[in-house]
Amino acid sequence: MTELKTELKTDRTTVRRLPKRGNYDRATVEAILDEALICHVGFIVDGSPVVIPTIHTRVGGTLYFHGSAASRMLRTLRDGVEACVTATLLDGLVLARSTFHHSMNYRSAVVFGVAREVTDRKEKLTVLEALVEHVCRGRSAEARGPNESELKQTLVLALPIREASAKIRTGPPIDDEEDYTMGVWAGVLPMRLVPGEPIRDERSSAQVPEYVTRYSR
Amino acid sequence: MTELKTELKTDRTTVRRLPKRGNYDRATVEAILDEALICHVGFIVDGSPVVIPTIHTRVGGTLYFHGSAASRMLRTLRDGVEACVTATLLDGLVLARSTFHHSMNYRSAVVFGVAREVTDRKEKLTVLEALVEHVCRGRSAEARGPNESELKQTLVLALPIREASAKIRTGPPIDDEEDYTMGVWAGVLPMRLVPGEPIRDERSSAQVPEYVTRYSR
Repeated sequence: MTELKTELKTDRTTVRRLPKRGNYDRATVEAILDEALICHVGFIVDGSPVVIPTIHTRVGGTLYFHGSAASRMLRTLRDGVEACVTATLLDGLVLARSTFHHSMNYRSAVVFGVAREVTDRKEKLTVLEALVEHVCRGRSAEARGPNESELKQTLVLALPIREASAKIRTGPPIDDEEDYTMGVWAGVLPMRLVPGEPIRDERSSAQVPEYVTRYSR
Repeated sequence: MTELKTELKTDRTTVRRLPKRGNYDRATVEAILDEALICHVGFIVDGSPVVIPTIHTRVGGTLYFHGSAASRMLRTLRDGVEACVTATLLDGLVLARSTFHHSMNYRSAVVFGVAREVTDRKEKLTVLEALVEHVCRGRSAEARGPNESELKQTLVLALPIREASAKIRTGPPIDDEEDYTMGVWAGVLPMRLVPGEPIRDERSSAQVPEYVTRYSR
């Protein structure tokens, strides 16, 4: 296995706006992909861009998607067209003194590349388990894994993480110096995706597992 | 002003996978766009798809974006290329008895179209205020509005909502009948984007406003 590049900068992954927020380090990109529950996949259909939300998972230096073998998105990507995958974590609203300097704290990762279909049975099973674990760690040990028919109905695609970038904003608002005398409150309102109370399926009588009651990302 | 179409279905907005989850009603699409803090904008650069997260707002039947006049995304879209804008709300993890039937509860909206630059001063001011209000209702009454220089530095784009669709999943997991005898817990873990404790900017001494302490979407 060839060693993974740690530097993911290419011409098309170069962050142009506010380049100081750009980051091309594999570990940074991977951490964002791992924390994000879903991503948005962009591809071209009949000359038009299409952006679809989907679940992903990362295994090593590869990003994986899955879905129905009938999915237009997956069938299009399987044919070897360019994809752009973006995962975004919202960390907070940045409330500045001027509307102009209002912003968001966020971490986003963008990966460019061409996907391939995963046909190797062992890799496919590994990925399907990783997809469940990505969404809910601990779940795959309890739920029933895929049978032959389910495996056949599921298309799994692999996108090597070779060209990517992260963009990150953190910290307080940065206002124009003359606005600091304004009396308006300024600061950050942190935002987080958090779980609520588990809702039991009416036909389930089992105890709620700890990986659900203590769910966090 | 021509009346807005309430039916937004076209060939390219037709939901193909699980068509029962598709919805083409303007009110449904607009409600998702309004609740989502950000969206992901897809466009084509040099033949490749690019997907970028951004803040949006809706005024009537039009979706708006803004950013620096130097933004590649905005400059590309201003030139009249096709865009696909997708906003996704995660509502919960759907934990089924089989990994195959695991899913997410979500609401997503996809809008296709070609944007135009907003050059009318009054419309631009209205949209910039609406953008702040979209993120934090009540804020625009307190923060300083844009001055001439800031207006000039800001590009605002309008995308009419004419071709769109929503896709929605709600409710419990749906398992294969034979799996209902399994002892594993099944149900939904609701997810929500919620605010944390406001973090005061160190140079701000004002009281935290109610629209921050009671923030909800």
